[in-house]
Amino acid sequence: MNKDITNRDQDFAKWYTDVCKKADLVDYSSVKGSMIIRPLGYAIWEEMVHVLDQKFKETGHENVQMPMFIPESLLNQEKEHVAGFAPEVAWVTQGGSEKLEERMCVRPTSEVLFCEHYKKIIKSYRDLPKLYNQWCTIVRWEKTTRPFLRSREILWQEGHTMHATKEEALEETLKMLNIYKEFQENYLAMPVITGKKTEKEKFAGAIETYTIEAMMYDGYALQNGTSHYFGQHFAKAFGIEFVNKDNKLETPYQTSWGVTTRMIGGLIMTHSDDNGLVLPPKIAPWKVIIIPIGEVSKELTELENMLKENNISYKVDLSNKTPGFKFAEAEVKGYPLRIELGERDLKNNEITIVRRDTLEKIKVSFDNVLIKIKELLVSMQKDMFLKAKERRDKMIYDAKTYDEVKEIALTKPGFIKINWCGDVNCENKIKEDTTMKTRCLIEDEEIDGPCVVCGKKAISKVYIGKQY
Amino acid sequence: MNKDITNRDQDFAKWYTDVCKKADLVDYSSVKGSMIIRPLGYAIWEEMVHVLDQKFKETGHENVQMPMFIPESLLNQEKEHVAGFAPEVAWVTQGGSEKLEERMCVRPTSEVLFCEHYKKIIKSYRDLPKLYNQWCTIVRWEKTTRPFLRSREILWQEGHTMHATKEEALEETLKMLNIYKEFQENYLAMPVITGKKTEKEKFAGAIETYTIEAMMYDGYALQNGTSHYFGQHFAKAFGIEFVNKDNKLETPYQTSWGVTTRMIGGLIMTHSDDNGLVLPPKIAPWKVIIIPIGEVSKELTELENMLKENNISYKVDLSNKTPGFKFAEAEVKGYPLRIELGERDLKNNEITIVRRDTLEKIKVSFDNVLIKIKELLVSMQKDMFLKAKERRDKMIYDAKTYDEVKEIALTKPGFIKINWCGDVNCENKIKEDTTMKTRCLIEDEEIDGPCVVCGKKAISKVYIGKQY
Repeated sequence: MNKDITNRDQDFAKWYTDVCKKADLVDYSSVKGSMIIRPLGYAIWEEMVHVLDQKFKETGHENVQMPMFIPESLLNQEKEHVAGFAPEVAWVTQGGSEKLEERMCVRPTSEVLFCEHYKKIIKSYRDLPKLYNQWCTIVRWEKTTRPFLRSREILWQEGHTMHATKEEALEETLKMLNIYKEFQENYLAMPVITGKKTEKEKFAGAIETYTIEAMMYDGYALQNGTSHYFGQHFAKAFGIEFVNKDNKLETPYQTSWGVTTRMIGGLIMTHSDDNGLVLPPKIAPWKVIIIPIGEVSKELTELENMLKENNISYKVDLSNKTPGFKFAEAEVKGYPLRIELGERDLKNNEITIVRRDTLEKIKVSFDNVLIKIKELLVSMQKDMFLKAKERRDKMIYDAKTYDEVKEIALTKPGFIKINWCGDVNCENKIKEDTTMKTRCLIEDEEIDGPCVVCGKKAISKVYIGKQY
Repeated sequence: MNKDITNRDQDFAKWYTDVCKKADLVDYSSVKGSMIIRPLGYAIWEEMVHVLDQKFKETGHENVQMPMFIPESLLNQEKEHVAGFAPEVAWVTQGGSEKLEERMCVRPTSEVLFCEHYKKIIKSYRDLPKLYNQWCTIVRWEKTTRPFLRSREILWQEGHTMHATKEEALEETLKMLNIYKEFQENYLAMPVITGKKTEKEKFAGAIETYTIEAMMYDGYALQNGTSHYFGQHFAKAFGIEFVNKDNKLETPYQTSWGVTTRMIGGLIMTHSDDNGLVLPPKIAPWKVIIIPIGEVSKELTELENMLKENNISYKVDLSNKTPGFKFAEAEVKGYPLRIELGERDLKNNEITIVRRDTLEKIKVSFDNVLIKIKELLVSMQKDMFLKAKERRDKMIYDAKTYDEVKEIALTKPGFIKINWCGDVNCENKIKEDTTMKTRCLIEDEEIDGPCVVCGKKAISKVYIGKQY
């Protein structure tokens, strides 16, 4: 246990902030509501970007860069969309010494910019699909902020695609949802639930919003990515048309999808502990930290060469701090494996490897160190996912009556599965009584009762839960 | 010659814009002064980022992410700096529905943000050096803009470092200048001149500004990167101090350095021609475009496998346009090598490779295609640099009298080397009479006469030239 980190079970919110600060992931500045992402935090983001960007490119997407400003008249072009975003944008009203004729907001998302561009470059079915993505920073003027989870500035990617048919656009929406899911499960070791949002919870301007819902250690939900199907809403508002194979004008179908630095918050709240950060090996910028103790330069060089040859990223702590201090720091910063390379141990041809997730100390013969490192990185990745999944599964409850819902909401952290009639009033009532919101519809489970709130015929099962 | 592209020698400015548009590098939007960077333009930027980021990391730099906003009071903290930037920033005055108590600008550069952070995290000599870099977008409210060269929004990287000694900071300033120079010469095939800026031309707040000066096809200078030594100016303004080894308080020494998407403009104005974009192989996102003609699927697969195995990026044009149209498009978009894979040629076991820089057509036996591709990529990279260097060297003149300066400035595009007394009045006079500005001091050439303007004792030779 790190004495500078609040106990996770006592005060989860404080624990989270402590881990962010003590692991040197973020810092604050005089820019209220924004955060500084420090080297370790940014290196984790770079790993995420690297993997996702490759997956986007493999599936035919191209990166572009749109302006960061949106003139007010352009933002106003799609009504539902502007209603959703106008209350939370930052407005630029002055450029140099001149007052702007029309104010511009810093992009909160870029649908309207992409649509304006698509209107110019889409003319024929040959121009479709257009599969664009952009990595950038967006701004949403949040009142209360928390590192990675809710910030006025957010680093993210936003995919915006246009298709000739509805089927193809729907397929894209689900394809990207699935890429997010696989990434979060396989790389971040975070089990996630995917599904459709209700009407009330969907994105401003979308026909369907699909969401990735992760459950944090404290049972709260983190919406950790969304994929939207827009149909022809925006395309019609922007007059985007193409000539089809039969030489007739048609309106294309659109999607957008995004994930943000919020995923780093999700990582922390899923895996980290009272000693600090715990990172799944596949997303850790450095898999191994080596701590030499005594005169071990020969073995250190040997080990470093092995790791380099095998493309296993690592760091060596050569500072003149005590070993104990170095161990604690290695734990706080979440290196998956800590290798203690001790002069005395090496006389018996031994070294010690410590797994960050279990803190288990493993003595290994120096001859087997590489095999063991590889083995541990694989099993750690797997074990972290299973542990998170097991914890999450235990915190998903079924409720058949509204009393049960209220009882569970009051006493047990987690998600509840309920039957629901589809009426927003029932969602609102749940929210008022329990602070829980609908997470997403459950498509693969049968309805087994009436709506838990109003008793009318249910149209779907849904997950409900408290959220970040 | 591409009929949609203006002749380069007739109207260089129009030619440049035509190439940017026809090669699909950029587009415009309703956001005045900003550009849309389209997939090919952005892919070139990604290549630049990839190479430079690796070089920064190899030299010990870490990436971070600072806020994009700067509160007015923070910008005001270093006087020379704010005087230089305040006239050209965009001001956010409203967040959501609330008017901000203090307006904030969108960062035009981030010295003050880094300094505020460094003040918090630098306490001891053990915390030094701090070698941070950030990839981001900055905003400068330019009146007239041109794609890549001058834009209200600029993608760039900005390194900001702090050091315990002056020597170390100066060494860093030159180290990064040299990384830029090597990158531009070896990857962009652009010969560059490096040197110190004069007092008049240096960065607002810097003690020394070193610059990379490239000469474009039309003889104009492009300042294509800068590296600044700040001494303790900012550190003192922000009260940054550290305890040295003798337990005494000292003020650290600072640098900053940056390059931008302007490098793409430089690439174009150095190498491209009347057929469109010409890209040096090392920075081209795709080295090869394959154009299959007729039934050649077996050989296409074979060629693709060869390229994949050898990590040579490529595209295949499978559209149903005519070969002639495809050739022109491959030229406009600057693929270094075009491979015509023709059914008829293949009957003689032959294919045609066309070099983009010379448009030379080379018949090669299919058995030797891989060797030839590798060979051509290497020689094209080298030849493009030499060609650009030869052209540039021919456009550098010596002038010993002011009449000569005015004569050359009027009749010949390029740079002029002059002896200069160090007085800003002489710089101003040159500017008034010729529109030329000093590019940088020449350190490795002896002064061989008095100041060409005033006739007083010269303190240095300098390059002068018209600029973008």
